[in-house]
Amino acid sequence: MDYRYLDKINSPDDLKKLNNDELGVVCAELRNLIIDTVSENGGHLASNLGAVELTVALHKCFNSPNDSIIFDVGHQCYTHKILTGRFSEFSSLRTQSGISGFMKPEESNHDPVITGHSSTSVSSAFGICFANALENNDNYSIAVIGDGALTGGMVYEAFNNVRKKDSKLIVVLNDNKMSISKNRGALAKHLSVIRTRKKYFKFKSGVERILKKIPLIGRFLYSFVFHLKLMVKNALYNSNIFESLGFYYMGPVDGHDLKALTDAFEIAKELNRPILIHTKTVKGKGYAPAETDPGNFHGVSGFDVESGKLPDSKPNFSQCFGQKMVELAAKDPKICAVTAAMTSGTGLKEFSEKFPERFIDVGIAEEHAVTFSSGLAVKGIKPVFAVYSTFLQRGYDQLIHDAAIAGLPLTLAVDRAGFVGDDGETHQGMFDVSFLSSVPGISIYSPASFNELESVLETRLVAPIGVAAIRYPRGGEPENLSDIDTSDDFTKIGEGDTCLISYGTLFSEVFDAKNILIDDNISVSAIKLNKIFPIEDRLINQLNQYKNIVFFEEGILNGGIAEKIGCSLLTKGFNGSYRIVGVNDFVKQATVSSQRKNYSLDCDSIIKITKEVMGIE
Amino acid sequence: MDYRYLDKINSPDDLKKLNNDELGVVCAELRNLIIDTVSENGGHLASNLGAVELTVALHKCFNSPNDSIIFDVGHQCYTHKILTGRFSEFSSLRTQSGISGFMKPEESNHDPVITGHSSTSVSSAFGICFANALENNDNYSIAVIGDGALTGGMVYEAFNNVRKKDSKLIVVLNDNKMSISKNRGALAKHLSVIRTRKKYFKFKSGVERILKKIPLIGRFLYSFVFHLKLMVKNALYNSNIFESLGFYYMGPVDGHDLKALTDAFEIAKELNRPILIHTKTVKGKGYAPAETDPGNFHGVSGFDVESGKLPDSKPNFSQCFGQKMVELAAKDPKICAVTAAMTSGTGLKEFSEKFPERFIDVGIAEEHAVTFSSGLAVKGIKPVFAVYSTFLQRGYDQLIHDAAIAGLPLTLAVDRAGFVGDDGETHQGMFDVSFLSSVPGISIYSPASFNELESVLETRLVAPIGVAAIRYPRGGEPENLSDIDTSDDFTKIGEGDTCLISYGTLFSEVFDAKNILIDDNISVSAIKLNKIFPIEDRLINQLNQYKNIVFFEEGILNGGIAEKIGCSLLTKGFNGSYRIVGVNDFVKQATVSSQRKNYSLDCDSIIKITKEVMGIE
Repeated sequence: MDYRYLDKINSPDDLKKLNNDELGVVCAELRNLIIDTVSENGGHLASNLGAVELTVALHKCFNSPNDSIIFDVGHQCYTHKILTGRFSEFSSLRTQSGISGFMKPEESNHDPVITGHSSTSVSSAFGICFANALENNDNYSIAVIGDGALTGGMVYEAFNNVRKKDSKLIVVLNDNKMSISKNRGALAKHLSVIRTRKKYFKFKSGVERILKKIPLIGRFLYSFVFHLKLMVKNALYNSNIFESLGFYYMGPVDGHDLKALTDAFEIAKELNRPILIHTKTVKGKGYAPAETDPGNFHGVSGFDVESGKLPDSKPNFSQCFGQKMVELAAKDPKICAVTAAMTSGTGLKEFSEKFPERFIDVGIAEEHAVTFSSGLAVKGIKPVFAVYSTFLQRGYDQLIHDAAIAGLPLTLAVDRAGFVGDDGETHQGMFDVSFLSSVPGISIYSPASFNELESVLETRLVAPIGVAAIRYPRGGEPENLSDIDTSDDFTKIGEGDTCLISYGTLFSEVFDAKNILIDDNISVSAIKLNKIFPIEDRLINQLNQYKNIVFFEEGILNGGIAEKIGCSLLTKGFNGSYRIVGVNDFVKQATVSSQRKNYSLDCDSIIKITKEVMGIE
Repeated sequence: MDYRYLDKINSPDDLKKLNNDELGVVCAELRNLIIDTVSENGGHLASNLGAVELTVALHKCFNSPNDSIIFDVGHQCYTHKILTGRFSEFSSLRTQSGISGFMKPEESNHDPVITGHSSTSVSSAFGICFANALENNDNYSIAVIGDGALTGGMVYEAFNNVRKKDSKLIVVLNDNKMSISKNRGALAKHLSVIRTRKKYFKFKSGVERILKKIPLIGRFLYSFVFHLKLMVKNALYNSNIFESLGFYYMGPVDGHDLKALTDAFEIAKELNRPILIHTKTVKGKGYAPAETDPGNFHGVSGFDVESGKLPDSKPNFSQCFGQKMVELAAKDPKICAVTAAMTSGTGLKEFSEKFPERFIDVGIAEEHAVTFSSGLAVKGIKPVFAVYSTFLQRGYDQLIHDAAIAGLPLTLAVDRAGFVGDDGETHQGMFDVSFLSSVPGISIYSPASFNELESVLETRLVAPIGVAAIRYPRGGEPENLSDIDTSDDFTKIGEGDTCLISYGTLFSEVFDAKNILIDDNISVSAIKLNKIFPIEDRLINQLNQYKNIVFFEEGILNGGIAEKIGCSLLTKGFNGSYRIVGVNDFVKQATVSSQRKNYSLDCDSIIKITKEVMGIE
């Protein structure tokens, strides 16, 4: 592929030298590069294709890194990365030690903050804006945020906090009428109303162009004229939610028209007020298969560029969960499913179609999801909130306050628990066991096979009591665990006086290691925890009989199960050796199998550590 | 005091029999009872006085418990409690085993959910509303929410999620222009604009009164006329944020006019749409000292009814923190203070007056507060976010995602850490050590005296690196710890081979116990942790030399420091005895000293446990 413009763009300064026609070619090259790279490495496609012109226009009009540009979630920051000196490294996208799929300050000073979770950009940009004001500099802070991210409550906390004088703050709303799947809710309706209004500012008027050329007084007049127009507009149209919250609203602007975008940004710079610029974009723009099916082309693990064919998805825990939910809900009208904008991701598509009246997509709103589900539980409904481990972090307070204190029967289906691979530090499911187990009265299950997940879910939903979390990983089931009996809270295998203990699919590595060791005439036993919390005395008494115990945990060690069991063993007078292996920092992007290796949680490392503990070799 | 009406109101049914004049007397009796009880027991005064008529009108128009009435936060639910069968027990307000100051289902089926933390009511009410619809019943769900709670983002998540068909959902906005102190932010301005608009519905029109009397067709016509009026209004006035989010807006209504309130509620019942009723109330209404100074009469620990004199506040950790912040900020222009609607509570009043440009009250918005502060830190500012332990639970995800992964120098001043006394399960600072220590790279300090707090804060703010939490309790310093040298990360006292270990002000109980034991010729040592996390090898090596160790922790044991140290000791081969004493469930309301007793964390229990461990007696 020939990238004759991108090849020469080492920083936004190089971009600024190009005229609009040339920038059009740059946009085409960007699309090619993004499509090519994502088809190979996987990543976020449709959202990035929709933000190409938007990002080019931003870098044309603003001066990054002095001006801070923050892409909310980061699902649309590839163009930004390519234009800010990362063109040649872009092929390493989402690989170990490669370019991150999200904003990442350690990669470039053009990435002011980390993004990954939704709805943080306005808060971050406002913080930077506030700091700039204290330092008396004139730099702009720009938050680029999708309409989906606007369903997250913290955006309103930020909007509410911004003051009239925060005039260097610009919010660019990238409105593609989708969050990840089709956007729902009252705000989406509101946006669709204001989206269709006639745009009330005309940038192309000759007067304004002339005014703009007269340096100082011109700018003032220009700003004054624009203010007047806004006032007239306010009299003619109903105001909108952003104006209610103190922002100047500009738009809608065609988010694929470079001229309209750069005009809007230049005007915004002069207005001396916090501004929201509403741009309309098309998710997947420029690649027909993604435009036609933006939902499935949101996040992909690679695809065929020519045909637009996505790889067949292999059976995975999310699908297994979704199918079981459909089966159980058909028999029990009390079962409801709740998702926070992750209908497909959590496997609930079929449920949503078969039981629309018992399915609720709350938007990217995990806090509300937990409290709403608790409200359902108050009235005898059996809510199941399906959510990725990393996003459940947002609902920690609500779990304690709205569900657990009252002991409400809320079921959490915690997907993407454990290593998640190439999404990087922000998305790993490392913390759920630690923070969930701090909540009194909770039960935590960690099924390692589809059978086990189905059985735990079915048993739980017969007559749920208290809060329970059923956590399972991204991807498919391991091949070696489907025959293990998991009917008890833990499963003991083998008789050696050294015990390897673990839970979840990580146990497959332990299981293999145990078999290899036994084949090697090294006698070890293994324990798989099925219900991992609370920890039963029966388990501690069992463990107390071993000489050596090694606990392998695919999760943060601080507050994890290994730590709890270690402490319990000590208080019960265990006097063998105890070793724990797990995660103690933020996990970087890599394949799941590399991540296991990096933390000594793969079969080979388990064998090596076990031998060390046993004093062999 | 004579309560001739309240004496006879055992349930809302008794209230419904009374006419408006009689209800006026009921309101006066309610105010007397609330003032009297709070002057004795402490509690939330001004907010409760402002919601008397509102609550009486709700119980007149709706049928609790079939209809669910949820008071957000619960700072205004005393009238509700008194009218729903808890009149005679009301004198036990906020005492051990007594009536809770917040909504509490285990107390009465008129309290559908627990409240305590802000901004949950719309989510809960919507959950209940959704469940009612599934069950095909016609019950209403009513969320009563203050303007302060509207600054919390999860309310918008809930608003966005409500659909047109959720017609049994009614939100009553209790707008007193205050959250706890004076309300700030864009929304407050927006409310003040719509508050002053001429009310656009007139309930008193003869036509409507007549229509209302014709049963079926009348109701229909009435509803139709009202719809028309709303449409006309929309053409005349700008719409507001609630309408943008799909609610029918009614108001403003005088929140102290029983007739106006009951008229509004009756209309709302007929409208067949999700409704927001905007009521204007006066915080502290009916008690002059509270009306004049509603901020200081928000939450009180008792007062003199005649004079309205509040007890002098004794020196406490919050004040100490605030004073030190003023001193440090005077020398270092990089220091900023952030609070989430707790300027006075966190001791930052003086700071806010002396350094207004470096002080930010973000509203009841802990999520935004953490990310905003992280944005400040990106630009080299030294942000200190002062927040109660229990409310910091809301910022857990943001701490991980926006502060810790990037290692930003955010300082958390975690107030009300540990037992907080009479506020009940929702407010105890039990979880911060557990959830904070799950975050890689964080440092946690737990000063036990004013000197120690000052010194830790001063040292930290010289050149902050990474996230640090400085946690300290509600109230004053213990008398016996000010002489202890806390310059190292832990302090060892005494030489016995049994070691009592603890941190924070709980160490004062341990310290006393140790002295009593030594006076009794029982040789014990004690270790006070100053920097409690991460745990150093040096500490584990020190502890490894003891025969018996007992760890006393004023916090949840799961994920706490005692557990971590226990596990570390085991992995390092400790073979003495280890015992941990702390909290393993939700802590009920009582005085702090009773709470310590209840969990065997008082001096007497410590002595008893230590003797047990040592095999004495």
